[in-house]
Amino acid sequence: MKRTLLALFLLLLSAMTGWAQAQPQVPATVSSPEVHSDGSVTFRFRDPNAHEVMLTLEGAKPAPMQKDDQGVWSLTTGPLEPDFYGYSFVAEGVGLIDPSNPLMKPNLLHTQSQVHVPGPSSLPWEIGDVSHGLVHHHFYKSGVVGDQRDFYVYTPPGYDPRAKQSYPVLYLLHGFSDDASGWTSVGRANVILDNLIAQGKAKPMVIVMPLGYGAPEIVMQGLGAFATELRKRNYDRFIQALLTEVIPQVEASYRVLKDRNSRAIAGLSMGGAETLLTGLNNLDKFAWIGAFSSGGLAEDFDADFPGLDAKANQQLRVLWVSCGTDDGLIALNRKLRAWLDSKGVHQTGIETAGGHTWMVWRRNLADFSGLLFK
Amino acid sequence: MKRTLLALFLLLLSAMTGWAQAQPQVPATVSSPEVHSDGSVTFRFRDPNAHEVMLTLEGAKPAPMQKDDQGVWSLTTGPLEPDFYGYSFVAEGVGLIDPSNPLMKPNLLHTQSQVHVPGPSSLPWEIGDVSHGLVHHHFYKSGVVGDQRDFYVYTPPGYDPRAKQSYPVLYLLHGFSDDASGWTSVGRANVILDNLIAQGKAKPMVIVMPLGYGAPEIVMQGLGAFATELRKRNYDRFIQALLTEVIPQVEASYRVLKDRNSRAIAGLSMGGAETLLTGLNNLDKFAWIGAFSSGGLAEDFDADFPGLDAKANQQLRVLWVSCGTDDGLIALNRKLRAWLDSKGVHQTGIETAGGHTWMVWRRNLADFSGLLFK
Repeated sequence: MKRTLLALFLLLLSAMTGWAQAQPQVPATVSSPEVHSDGSVTFRFRDPNAHEVMLTLEGAKPAPMQKDDQGVWSLTTGPLEPDFYGYSFVAEGVGLIDPSNPLMKPNLLHTQSQVHVPGPSSLPWEIGDVSHGLVHHHFYKSGVVGDQRDFYVYTPPGYDPRAKQSYPVLYLLHGFSDDASGWTSVGRANVILDNLIAQGKAKPMVIVMPLGYGAPEIVMQGLGAFATELRKRNYDRFIQALLTEVIPQVEASYRVLKDRNSRAIAGLSMGGAETLLTGLNNLDKFAWIGAFSSGGLAEDFDADFPGLDAKANQQLRVLWVSCGTDDGLIALNRKLRAWLDSKGVHQTGIETAGGHTWMVWRRNLADFSGLLFK
Repeated sequence: MKRTLLALFLLLLSAMTGWAQAQPQVPATVSSPEVHSDGSVTFRFRDPNAHEVMLTLEGAKPAPMQKDDQGVWSLTTGPLEPDFYGYSFVAEGVGLIDPSNPLMKPNLLHTQSQVHVPGPSSLPWEIGDVSHGLVHHHFYKSGVVGDQRDFYVYTPPGYDPRAKQSYPVLYLLHGFSDDASGWTSVGRANVILDNLIAQGKAKPMVIVMPLGYGAPEIVMQGLGAFATELRKRNYDRFIQALLTEVIPQVEASYRVLKDRNSRAIAGLSMGGAETLLTGLNNLDKFAWIGAFSSGGLAEDFDADFPGLDAKANQQLRVLWVSCGTDDGLIALNRKLRAWLDSKGVHQTGIETAGGHTWMVWRRNLADFSGLLFK
């Protein structure tokens, strides 16, 4: 309704004021997504000529939308748990973001929209009436990879570069096809830590979120490249860039503790594999390791983690290996945990509800970060 | 071609590895945008059932795309000047971002895509092989507006919070329907200043980019609200939030100079109006004022700038009023400049080529910032 008025106003006003060029198109006049008080959500998308439009909603099976006589496709879900969900409209196999929704989900392969089903302030990803930390966006030229790239740094509430207090650091890695903004723009890592720190559930810490590709061309090559030499180069150069470029920049620029007991590493999916490859092979640098829904390991664990054995238990403060039971990667993760058991390496093995989704990873981060540096 | 292979790999690999849930849709298998060596661009969009798809490209008139027998609509432009251009595909009046392109253009009313037509490193918005500054993302609860909101702060290369050097500050305001990220994610303000500083063309400075709405509901009310009481509240509260919330936070957190000669304010479109309302009515706080393609002034300048007269010349170091000659707002800006003349207020009046576009505003920022603090 407001959108319809808006469209009228735009036409009227652009003629009057000359702002027409600021309004390059008539916005979609449908309201979407509409979140109802019971947590159900109505999605709407105007596409009068499509034969079929499917809703792809994170954590759910693709579902057909219904068209009305105005050419507007819609679907109302059942009540959803409070959370943020990625979604897109798939028309003839083409995934489209919701043109009525400004909340986008960045991704290098398939951009989507996000819908927020609000919940109580006890949920860690809800913006609370608490002090907020900062997110710093860094840019640098990588000698290891040979490109201009970026990383993000979260500093907790009260962090003061001019004060003497120093903080432990969590290096937090995104998944395949995400960009470096994934853990903040989708994972809400800064919001989660603001809340946990305010509640005393997590220690104040710095979080560093680097770009997770040592061979960025792997994104366009797709998952097929994970069976190739490119996979190895992607991981090797990622680890080298992290250890020799990102960590030194962070430790030179921020008040952070530099001992292994003050350094954690965690990541999701491909970032979980990178976490294990980095952390378990560099126990002199990391005491806390968290692998969320890991994927992209070659499953030759003896080759990936040469020499790893029970001696690692003396250095590992936490080795967390989690996966959702509806995740296609659950078998790989169980295999990994069994292999760690066979080597006598202690681990916190976690199986949660859920699939290969950010709903799982936000909870993983909240739980894992609460264990750190204690 | 790569995209087709990718789709095949995704299907194959997702079956093999269980990563299916990480890939919620088959990505569009068309390549778009494809930038050719002469600067022309081919846009492609698969929508087999549409009757008409228009390309809306920033700075150009909407143009019809042509459909091939695969249902792929395409259009190849003539050679474009090197720059970043916003665009969308408009199917049946609905503006869609390009599903093949990860470079999105955030906006609260109509999200779009961006295409980069690369140019020589002499162009200020091209990422150069120079030292890069940082972009800091701040979050706070506004008592003035009553919401949780954000602002961005650019610190120049070499900025060190632990050193003694302090910097002048430019407050830089976005336009109607942008969010606080507009000047970095679309305007490339950080890249522009990195380059100008490296070349000695601009003084090292801090840039603060706040959310520009004192009454955020004005966005959903649309431009029509600019004729209402809401407009006044939007501006009044924006100015109050800037002066009493944002500036104090910046001056407490960063090494910045706090005298009026070290404080500039500039903005585009609605942000240009806010710049003039803030700056010209607070000459004790700002000595450098830049209004780019201003819009949303009530055109009752005597009421907007009470008491402004030639005495202001003693305080103003630069008053820049610019507009593109193809911009619908050129008449308003000429009227404003004539009114300033009538009051004896000196100004740098600039008319450039171009319309109401970011191509104009990137150049405005490069030119204006080069004048500051000298």
